[in-house]
Amino acid sequence: MIFVGLDIGGTNIKAALVEIQSATEQSPDFSTVSILEKITVPTRASGGPASVTAQIHNAIEEMLHSAPNRVHAVGIGVPGSVDHERGIVLYPPNLPGWKDVALARILSAKWELPFYLDNDANCAAVGEALFGAGRGCSNFITLTLGTGIGSGIILNGGIYRGARGYAGEFGHITIDPNGPRCNCGNNGCVEAYVGNSYMTARAKQAVKHHPDSVLYELLSNDNAGFTPEDIAEAAEAGDEFAREFLYTTGEILGIAVASAANLLDITDFVIGGGIAGAGEPLLDGILRSGRDRVLEVHRDALRVVAAGLGNDAGMSGAAASAAVEPFKTLR
Amino acid sequence: MIFVGLDIGGTNIKAALVEIQSATEQSPDFSTVSILEKITVPTRASGGPASVTAQIHNAIEEMLHSAPNRVHAVGIGVPGSVDHERGIVLYPPNLPGWKDVALARILSAKWELPFYLDNDANCAAVGEALFGAGRGCSNFITLTLGTGIGSGIILNGGIYRGARGYAGEFGHITIDPNGPRCNCGNNGCVEAYVGNSYMTARAKQAVKHHPDSVLYELLSNDNAGFTPEDIAEAAEAGDEFAREFLYTTGEILGIAVASAANLLDITDFVIGGGIAGAGEPLLDGILRSGRDRVLEVHRDALRVVAAGLGNDAGMSGAAASAAVEPFKTLR
Repeated sequence: MIFVGLDIGGTNIKAALVEIQSATEQSPDFSTVSILEKITVPTRASGGPASVTAQIHNAIEEMLHSAPNRVHAVGIGVPGSVDHERGIVLYPPNLPGWKDVALARILSAKWELPFYLDNDANCAAVGEALFGAGRGCSNFITLTLGTGIGSGIILNGGIYRGARGYAGEFGHITIDPNGPRCNCGNNGCVEAYVGNSYMTARAKQAVKHHPDSVLYELLSNDNAGFTPEDIAEAAEAGDEFAREFLYTTGEILGIAVASAANLLDITDFVIGGGIAGAGEPLLDGILRSGRDRVLEVHRDALRVVAAGLGNDAGMSGAAASAAVEPFKTLR
Repeated sequence: MIFVGLDIGGTNIKAALVEIQSATEQSPDFSTVSILEKITVPTRASGGPASVTAQIHNAIEEMLHSAPNRVHAVGIGVPGSVDHERGIVLYPPNLPGWKDVALARILSAKWELPFYLDNDANCAAVGEALFGAGRGCSNFITLTLGTGIGSGIILNGGIYRGARGYAGEFGHITIDPNGPRCNCGNNGCVEAYVGNSYMTARAKQAVKHHPDSVLYELLSNDNAGFTPEDIAEAAEAGDEFAREFLYTTGEILGIAVASAANLLDITDFVIGGGIAGAGEPLLDGILRSGRDRVLEVHRDALRVVAAGLGNDAGMSGAAASAAVEPFKTLR
């Protein structure tokens, strides 16, 4: 079956024609996903809902043109909270002027197709559940590291959205009540250590004592253009400081991982996003600190793995989200 | 309908004949609960499973004798994790010698009645959902403050047990990674501030600067026999230090309340156990710190209330747990 998956970001809209094959049409036990074609168009966020919606229409039109009359449904990942049932974008922090926009209804008026919206972190979790690192696992949490921490919670084989659709704010678990100020207004949220800008600030501070690191020059002066992916790249190239820094960042995440494991009896964590690509030092740090802190009953079960869907996770997750919609659970 | 509710503690077993009335027999929409009769027998925990089971038999026998042929089922709250589906007590920390005891099967061999086991914190949550402060609320968390923090999570109108039955360890959310050592081995768990012995130690420290407090004498010398209930009593009698101390304790709990609210989109918290009786300063502290720390979207919705079932919560919760068993959700 063919779906269109859209990943709406603050800067770009990515759209793909996604083929999802299932063992049978009667179960959500999907077997493979492949991206047949994809495009990127600018979001034009500053123009408000009208200009962004026009860009969404363009992207959909192009995808439908490539597979006339073959698309089953369209899945859309939105950066922020959505009313999934009613297809309404509630209040996306990076899309100025959007508040309670009935996007599914707007799109349905033009295209005779089912449209399904979900928070992009939930789409990523569904994608990982069906095709990625969460396959075969009925309870897990995905963390997508970037500007903030996107997080999707799979409970009892289904996405857990919470009563009002706001569930999954793993990034706003407090790990130190006197820690640095977070942009949410609280102090010491995980995000205030691991969100992109906070991580850059921490790296800038930490690198001062490591003139031998390839990051020293990059960070010591003006760090415009610097992103945490630079740390990941340096780590992959063997830079000791970068590896150590990612390990420490993992240890910070591990504090909240242990708390979530204890609260929810969840022991599987799937880590994606920019710096997760560097893999091992970050994942090792999470696992070490998570194991040290979690209740004994979870210690051996704790599993921290890299996301399996890579760069196209947003689009294939959105398509997966549309594909599972007819089923009550993911498996 | 009449049930037997058992609350198994490390020191005593409390048993009650509980009448639960429902609007209809077809729905779990129960309307009233009343304790018809109750007894307390010593647990005799040091004698291991055989002696405790003998005491359980005695308690059940006495209750059944009071209402011959009228008891529908027996609900049992166990202090520790249970395999609810199979009626097995897994590993209760305060019952020496117990490991994987098939209690429901053992009891069924003697009495021809359905037996349902659950963790005592889950029983409390079900009791609050049906008859207490959680009535009409599909998503909430109960915290029962005592030796540790018992916690039950109601999600989508049902108890959330987690994949292996270990969910709800709210007391082991880390609120300060460098905080005091917790008996679980981690540092800075909520319980390492709010569990009875930790709370007494904090109070002993804090009271040093408050010679005017009624707690000063009690805590300054040997504090044998002192319990956090003494703080609650002093607070109720108007002792400024005690009120301040409970407020601060509330603020500590509020840190984890905010984290759980953000992660799960849950805004209702029901607080029970020893010191919760003192009410207002503790609940105010939780609400103030929770509101200050939670994401804006939850701020006005956050609700922190005292448990409604009081001293008999253990027994009526266990009975409620048995009463809801035939239904898939609580409402």
